Amino acid sequence: MKILVVNPNTSASMTNAIAETARHAASPGTEILAVQPDYGPEAIDCAMESYLSAVAVMDRILTLGEPYDAVVLAGFGEHGREGVQEIVDVPVLDIAESSAHVAQLIGRSYSVVTTLQRSVGAIEDRLRLAGLADRCASVRSCGLSTLDVDRDPAAALEAIVAEAERAVRADHAEVICLGCGGMAGLDEAITARLGVPVVDGVAAGVRLAEAVAGLGLRTSKICTYAPPEPKTITAWPLSRHLGVAAR
Amino acid sequence: MKILVVNPNTSASMTNAIAETARHAASPGTEILAVQPDYGPEAIDCAMESYLSAVAVMDRILTLGEPYDAVVLAGFGEHGREGVQEIVDVPVLDIAESSAHVAQLIGRSYSVVTTLQRSVGAIEDRLRLAGLADRCASVRSCGLSTLDVDRDPAAALEAIVAEAERAVRADHAEVICLGCGGMAGLDEAITARLGVPVVDGVAAGVRLAEAVAGLGLRTSKICTYAPPEPKTITAWPLSRHLGVAAR
Amino acid sequence: MKILVVNPNTSASMTNAIAETARHAASPGTEILAVQPDYGPEAIDCAMESYLSAVAVMDRILTLGEPYDAVVLAGFGEHGREGVQEIVDVPVLDIAESSAHVAQLIGRSYSVVTTLQRSVGAIEDRLRLAGLADRCASVRSCGLSTLDVDRDPAAALEAIVAEAERAVRADHAEVICLGCGGMAGLDEAITARLGVPVVDGVAAGVRLAEAVAGLGLRTSKICTYAPPEPKTITAWPLSRHLGVAAR
Amino acid sequence: MKILVVNPNTSASMTNAIAETARHAASPGTEILAVQPDYGPEAIDCAMESYLSAVAVMDRILTLGEPYDAVVLAGFGEHGREGVQEIVDVPVLDIAESSAHVAQLIGRSYSVVTTLQRSVGAIEDRLRLAGLADRCASVRSCGLSTLDVDRDPAAALEAIVAEAERAVRADHAEVICLGCGGMAGLDEAITARLGVPVVDGVAAGVRLAEAVAGLGLRTSKICTYAPPEPKTITAWPLSRHLGVAAR
Amino acid sequence: MKILVVNPNTSASMTNAIAETARHAASPGTEILAVQPDYGPEAIDCAMESYLSAVAVMDRILTLGEPYDAVVLAGFGEHGREGVQEIVDVPVLDIAESSAHVAQLIGRSYSVVTTLQRSVGAIEDRLRLAGLADRCASVRSCGLSTLDVDRDPAAALEAIVAEAERAVRADHAEVICLGCGGMAGLDEAITARLGVPVVDGVAAGVRLAEAVAGLGLRTSKICTYAPPEPKTITAWPLSRHLGVAAR
Amino acid sequence: MKILVVNPNTSASMTNAIAETARHAASPGTEILAVQPDYGPEAIDCAMESYLSAVAVMDRILTLGEPYDAVVLAGFGEHGREGVQEIVDVPVLDIAESSAHVAQLIGRSYSVVTTLQRSVGAIEDRLRLAGLADRCASVRSCGLSTLDVDRDPAAALEAIVAEAERAVRADHAEVICLGCGGMAGLDEAITARLGVPVVDGVAAGVRLAEAVAGLGLRTSKICTYAPPEPKTITAWPLSRHLGVAAR
Repeated sequence: MKILVVNPNTSASMTNAIAETARHAASPGTEILAVQPDYGPEAIDCAMESYLSAVAVMDRILTLGEPYDAVVLAGFGEHGREGVQEIVDVPVLDIAESSAHVAQLIGRSYSVVTTLQRSVGAIEDRLRLAGLADRCASVRSCGLSTLDVDRDPAAALEAIVAEAERAVRADHAEVICLGCGGMAGLDEAITARLGVPVVDGVAAGVRLAEAVAGLGLRTSKICTYAPPEPKTITAWPLSRHLGVAAR
Repeated sequence: MKILVVNPNTSASMTNAIAETARHAASPGTEILAVQPDYGPEAIDCAMESYLSAVAVMDRILTLGEPYDAVVLAGFGEHGREGVQEIVDVPVLDIAESSAHVAQLIGRSYSVVTTLQRSVGAIEDRLRLAGLADRCASVRSCGLSTLDVDRDPAAALEAIVAEAERAVRADHAEVICLGCGGMAGLDEAITARLGVPVVDGVAAGVRLAEAVAGLGLRTSKICTYAPPEPKTITAWPLSRHLGVAAR
Repeated sequence: MKILVVNPNTSASMTNAIAETARHAASPGTEILAVQPDYGPEAIDCAMESYLSAVAVMDRILTLGEPYDAVVLAGFGEHGREGVQEIVDVPVLDIAESSAHVAQLIGRSYSVVTTLQRSVGAIEDRLRLAGLADRCASVRSCGLSTLDVDRDPAAALEAIVAEAERAVRADHAEVICLGCGGMAGLDEAITARLGVPVVDGVAAGVRLAEAVAGLGLRTSKICTYAPPEPKTITAWPLSRHLGVAAR
Repeated sequence: MKILVVNPNTSASMTNAIAETARHAASPGTEILAVQPDYGPEAIDCAMESYLSAVAVMDRILTLGEPYDAVVLAGFGEHGREGVQEIVDVPVLDIAESSAHVAQLIGRSYSVVTTLQRSVGAIEDRLRLAGLADRCASVRSCGLSTLDVDRDPAAALEAIVAEAERAVRADHAEVICLGCGGMAGLDEAITARLGVPVVDGVAAGVRLAEAVAGLGLRTSKICTYAPPEPKTITAWPLSRHLGVAAR
Repeated sequence: MKILVVNPNTSASMTNAIAETARHAASPGTEILAVQPDYGPEAIDCAMESYLSAVAVMDRILTLGEPYDAVVLAGFGEHGREGVQEIVDVPVLDIAESSAHVAQLIGRSYSVVTTLQRSVGAIEDRLRLAGLADRCASVRSCGLSTLDVDRDPAAALEAIVAEAERAVRADHAEVICLGCGGMAGLDEAITARLGVPVVDGVAAGVRLAEAVAGLGLRTSKICTYAPPEPKTITAWPLSRHLGVAAR
Repeated sequence: MKILVVNPNTSASMTNAIAETARHAASPGTEILAVQPDYGPEAIDCAMESYLSAVAVMDRILTLGEPYDAVVLAGFGEHGREGVQEIVDVPVLDIAESSAHVAQLIGRSYSVVTTLQRSVGAIEDRLRLAGLADRCASVRSCGLSTLDVDRDPAAALEAIVAEAERAVRADHAEVICLGCGGMAGLDEAITARLGVPVVDGVAAGVRLAEAVAGLGLRTSKICTYAPPEPKTITAWPLSRHLGVAAR
């Protein structure tokens, strides 16, 4: 089985980190193909960037020219999943939703710990539209940007564990979902400190993708996710018209 | 007061029709500036096209170089409102949401009648995220595409009135919102036939934009809709890198 | 356009204050006609008073004998809107609902700051029945009665700002609605101190009334808000049978 | 135990019918005191009449001058319960809510069958505010007014049974609540025809009032239902100022 | 009237305490028959024990061989009510649900104070499935096990009152439901200290059972609670096959 | 990996059928251990049977004496999952929930088609408590009992396809979940006829169990699903006290 894992931003180091997590999580025999868009933001912290990334991700997938069995979209709380479901036939998994699915399977309620407060709304929106908000105890911000997390991992660990602890103590979360990519590897530390399972979105997405594809199931094309009708779309795919560097 | 009305697709005739509706609805003294994106779909019927349109709309607004007092996004059920709220300071109104606000002010419940069934979910999602789903009796499809509506307006009128009647009789809707642009002008016909008020989204958006801007209010920038942080965004705005025709 | 603004209580000074706010908010060319009931409470702080006021307001409107284009009911969280919608043809707007509509147009979530805790439930009920509760982060009490607010405005400002700050910090409200009439004029102070937009209900009601009436729309009479059927009603309108002072 | 049962309208024959149902339902030893307001509508079919009735009912209770152990408000879907809870100390029960409580105790879901479609919204609002909407399968109208029901009971029976049957077959209601006073006595007929239990609101209200009062419980006065604060209320109670016929 | 009150656990002293509360709450002329299962846990603190108790309770009822007019299931938050509704014809009341029904009749919102945090979810689930969660302000744990409550009643009183106070102050509960049997008798103390009504589940269940049975109503057998179809069930009732001590 | 699949009823042929489906769905290298309880119903169609089955399943698992990596509970809409989560450390998956998780990953909304109408409520309750009801378009009954399905598979296919078609046409379901075990093998037929993906619960449960266990995750033991405290439980495990046939 080959799973296409798409980093939604243009940071190659992030793509590599995501690929590593995905490969670590995958079953033996699963091949991970990790890619990133040709244009768009180096990191995603707001709706404007998220929309741009959604388009750049669809563009990258449309122009990939290579077969795969499932897609994992590795942005936590980003737009785009429904669009990708229209343009490919294989299952498409979003990591925020995948985290929540797995969390609900192992605990009565879960909380998400993410970076900045401004991202909380976007994550809540994704979970709500996916029908996964009911068992969400809270989406909490640790107050640090992705950059801050990268810059000082030790301080970040403290901030994230502190917020996860508030989720467990005050919101009665029984599982913690790590709400951003830069938090990979923190799961063992949090479990050790708080005694609750921690779900990493990329890992969850990869394993659920294996499960769904392994069941021989594909996205329903009966209505909402039917392929786009042929029509005139100016400059699409954008990558063919942009003077951006080749991959 | 000057209101920027953005047609989300690249059809110039649609832009003209929207501009006309907007001008007809506006108060005396309100100037309507109607624009359309430089790239993207000629019509929007699915999530892929909606996401692309959202980016093209943000791009068009970012590169406009002209002042205005409010923005009306003239796509019914399209993505993008939160992104535009981040990049401009003035109020930003989506016509699906504007329709629902006005409908709730004049009736106990409302239904939306839109084109194809595949658009129903997108409209439901917009209303739900905007906190306007509770008094929505139904979102119904008349089974015709935008193209069909354009091609045979008389047949379209019958199909739309029939569906609106089902909304009134079966779902107990007390107000009908016209869920696509091509339906402009149908409101009088439906009111005459069914005895319920009909809300046109572009008209509602323009008048609500006047109201909010007239109150001296602007989008809250305290958290979710704060401006994007400066960061490296490859090829953004895309319009500056694309070889598309000048406006 | 002429807008009838109805103070729900019998305090003439409150009617004057409301009229002033309404005139300040109105568009040029809009005439404000401010009235108050002939009987009922001088201020409204509980359901008993709210119901009595609702009847006195309907009575006042029924016996007005003067044309107008829209009605604004200037009680925050009071009963009566549906009754007035039945007895008049023009649009009828409640200021609690109007505040929430405007707040939702400019922020992801809003909080209401009102006077006493006992009024919180009534406001929550109004918002819920109007289908506007979903984006309401909280309804908070500042612990002061309307009388307290009038008596010591400086102390009231501190109490209200403090509660608004809790709404912003703890509940993540992005917009504040001022939940009682005595708070008019506090909006600039709160915006200056907290950096969030503040919505005044009377102002919001007047501008939304202009918008709805300007669109040529009226309350749907198809079902819930149809005029009352003719029937024997003992002593109605009450004002014609009461020995209360003439206006 | 003495239970005050208040007919919300001014029809003496309705008061008698309600009193009879209440006495039939009461435990041995329970005394029923049935009263009606001094002014207001002879029947209640809309919000205007419902608000007026709420005030007339509060007035009647305030001026009663006689002790009782509980109050049952015998209007189905009418306003006023919260107001009465403020002005008396003993438990106050609304028959729409009482019906729903009892229905939930004997079935998985219930439907209400009421008279005209325009009353459906009012009943839905009462159930929703009382926290009893979740197990409500539907509120259905039989299309007849109260007057029609009185005029031709045999035809009414057919219409009501037909609608109850739709509730059972289509909405999977397992209990039927009779949604207006004029339907008393229909319960046996419906149960015989459809095989589901039928709840009469007055009977349910009386028995629940006995239960709550028998437990020694009274309305919580800690916040929402605290007594009104002393203040100037012009012409209140209205009955003392009106030239209406003495009881 | 004879009411069967079933203690869900095998503690005879608990059965006696429940019987005493039930008799104290019952109307004159109501006979209380209190029983306990032949097998299962001596106390119930988790789902495993709750399920086992549900079966033991059904078994006890099936093999009772004595008539009664209603059943009260005296476990707070335990499973089993639907099963008992299938196997008997008379009304079946669960004390957690009964508490909530009564609480909703006397206050705008209620909170439950229970023993350990791990029981909170089970109580929330029962209330939600019964359609009674909407007016539930909170389910709070006092941090003590049933055993702790028995062992040191004075300390328990303090812990429970402290938690009830948090429910009143922070969650705006207007009524407190005592969420476990061991708390009987605490109601007066809490009411005296906090000024809010307190509902005891067994008392509420007994009085509501009298009310429902007194109305001549029985569980709807039209669908969900129809009697089980005849079929082969190995070793059922279990009590006939177990070597447990006779009652 | 070894997955314990538990048939909740005592039918050996059903255990075999479930084992076959599980083995067919499992990844290469996954071992399926299929068991059934020692006592309880041969088929489960009501709450009484479901509760008894839940206890018999917990008993069977407690006394198994063999290691495994995850548990799949193969009853659709049955009780027991939370109890098993308390008594084992490895992940525990319920097939109704597993179906819904997978369905939500491949479509906007899903419907369940089950056997008799009386089982609909139980399935709705399971989905609601699991936080999976939001995207459930409907739970529909085909009107046949499990026995009927077994007896005449061709007629059953027609009935099930007809009901699935109603779910797709009327409820806009985009995925169908087969809501009982006897329906295994119908998925291809339904997909062929209706063009929507069909999810089999046992298959979904097995693949999700592999995913969760493969991620190294286990049920959170921090609160709700902590192991039962040691206490006196009369006659537990029941299997040790019953004179039932050895396995």
